[in-house]
Amino acid sequence: MTSDKVMTMSNNCHGWAARDDTGLLSPYEFERRSVGGNDVSVKITHCGICYADVACTRNKRNNTVYPVVPGHEIVGIVKEVGDEVSKFKVGDHVGVRPFVDSCRECAYCDVGHEEHCSKTTLTINGTCKDGTISKGGYSSFIVVHDGSTFAMCGITVYNPMIHHKMNQPGKSLGVVGLGGLGHMAVKFGKAFGLNVTVFSTSIYKKDDALNMLKADKFVLSSDKEQMAALAHSLDFIVDAASGNHPVDLYMSLLKPEGVLALVGLPSEKIELSPLSLLMGARSISGSAVGGTKRTQEMIEFCAKHEIYPEIEVIPIDMRTKLLIDSRRVM
Amino acid sequence: MTSDKVMTMSNNCHGWAARDDTGLLSPYEFERRSVGGNDVSVKITHCGICYADVACTRNKRNNTVYPVVPGHEIVGIVKEVGDEVSKFKVGDHVGVRPFVDSCRECAYCDVGHEEHCSKTTLTINGTCKDGTISKGGYSSFIVVHDGSTFAMCGITVYNPMIHHKMNQPGKSLGVVGLGGLGHMAVKFGKAFGLNVTVFSTSIYKKDDALNMLKADKFVLSSDKEQMAALAHSLDFIVDAASGNHPVDLYMSLLKPEGVLALVGLPSEKIELSPLSLLMGARSISGSAVGGTKRTQEMIEFCAKHEIYPEIEVIPIDMRTKLLIDSRRVM
Repeated sequence: MTSDKVMTMSNNCHGWAARDDTGLLSPYEFERRSVGGNDVSVKITHCGICYADVACTRNKRNNTVYPVVPGHEIVGIVKEVGDEVSKFKVGDHVGVRPFVDSCRECAYCDVGHEEHCSKTTLTINGTCKDGTISKGGYSSFIVVHDGSTFAMCGITVYNPMIHHKMNQPGKSLGVVGLGGLGHMAVKFGKAFGLNVTVFSTSIYKKDDALNMLKADKFVLSSDKEQMAALAHSLDFIVDAASGNHPVDLYMSLLKPEGVLALVGLPSEKIELSPLSLLMGARSISGSAVGGTKRTQEMIEFCAKHEIYPEIEVIPIDMRTKLLIDSRRVM
Repeated sequence: MTSDKVMTMSNNCHGWAARDDTGLLSPYEFERRSVGGNDVSVKITHCGICYADVACTRNKRNNTVYPVVPGHEIVGIVKEVGDEVSKFKVGDHVGVRPFVDSCRECAYCDVGHEEHCSKTTLTINGTCKDGTISKGGYSSFIVVHDGSTFAMCGITVYNPMIHHKMNQPGKSLGVVGLGGLGHMAVKFGKAFGLNVTVFSTSIYKKDDALNMLKADKFVLSSDKEQMAALAHSLDFIVDAASGNHPVDLYMSLLKPEGVLALVGLPSEKIELSPLSLLMGARSISGSAVGGTKRTQEMIEFCAKHEIYPEIEVIPIDMRTKLLIDSRRVM
């Protein structure tokens, strides 16, 4: 780092942290590093709630280092930039991606596929280059390398859709689960000219799916008749359900050589019949994040097609309960 | 059918059938249909042993109709052809593919991807168009549509390798399990110019892998150190192990966006961590058979590169025990 700024050794950041696997959040003061030459300091105005935050605060993966500050879907306003930053200036509205650093040297980093770098630092509960544990966006501000700063939205679903050539009009898309990721998959699907079917366990999602998001069809996944009628009919499925759910059931809806892209994070192992893959040469694939190049491409696509996420603003004092009580409905 | 031949209503075929889920085979006389206009009658000289035969005779999928005649890897000599058959003549050495019929009308059949037709009739325990149950190759002869007749070898592994662009020199291939499918994957891999690593639970496969098949590396899958050293190093894995085995372990060896193609048939459900897919956008895919077009292409490739399967000939009276006692070693 080439910054000449002096490190402040006091707790300069106000956040909310879980102390143990109850996942209960309470106020927590900690220190963010000072702004290095290539760093951007972002005043956090809003931060998303994702099931990965819930899982992390509750130590579902047995790797949480407490106290943990969750929140990896960060948006805010630039409040300070390092000497070498030219992409951003104070006052810019930006987002921070779900990993705050990568090695910046490997073949993946070189071509803007930093999401595949073996040394990425996740925005929450990740190990930083200095050995400290990364603290997320349920906090007053964050300091990150300028390469990690964007206007974020939906790259988790955009990335696999492009990778699997699902931007070709006329193809058929299934979307399982209509939350943060699922609803963006529907928006991208319609913008790409796809025939979109939304699957949900909740009839209350029907109106949003058909009227707000303009999906072509809504199917209650418990409706055996409707599910059976859709067998072998879909080119691609974005599976954005975080709860445990029957993957074989959705695999049976795919055409031969069809792909199910898992973007949610079921807390248990996935179970599927080998025949779901063998018959029809079907695949199940995963995607979590995207790299610099495709994220930039997506932002431009969203701007052009006026694709914006639907959001609901929840004050932080309510969010503490949400993280405890949330029962994900897909 | 335009044949003018008269149907013989007697048991004209001698076979070996399992009567119940012990899988024990014993002699069984039954009737094959007479040769129709587009049919070929093949005198069966040899038939492979595949775990799918074992699974079928033991009713592992709960769908076996007894008595069942197993055997779907059939080779033999044409002994009779229908009036409209021009591709084959009496005396030709041929193989029969693992499904004996398809609808011949759908979009998949039209382009030689009959393996994806929703109305294929498997060579064993399948439902034929006349409602009877198909009887396999552990028998004296078989009558099939001429489109189902080929010189067969290894399409199950060739198909996914081509589909996933693994015919590009310099890529890295892992092969799990060195049986009928696995050893063909190694041969194709070397012919494509790949760097091939064979994984096995049995040290006795090492010599075959390195010296007979010319694989670049052999790794005992129980060797944790060697397995760890290969993390994130492979572009593609052909998983030809039929026994239940830890898929997550092999997924961890794939590079980002790498693919594991399942071609074996584990009898239980596959269990894998969602993170095996999400991190690095990896995929697990399946493949069982191939269609007319790619099978023909493969036969030509094999002829050109002198790729032949290694075989071991076992008389039928021994095979009856094998089907009962086989404990698959991968």
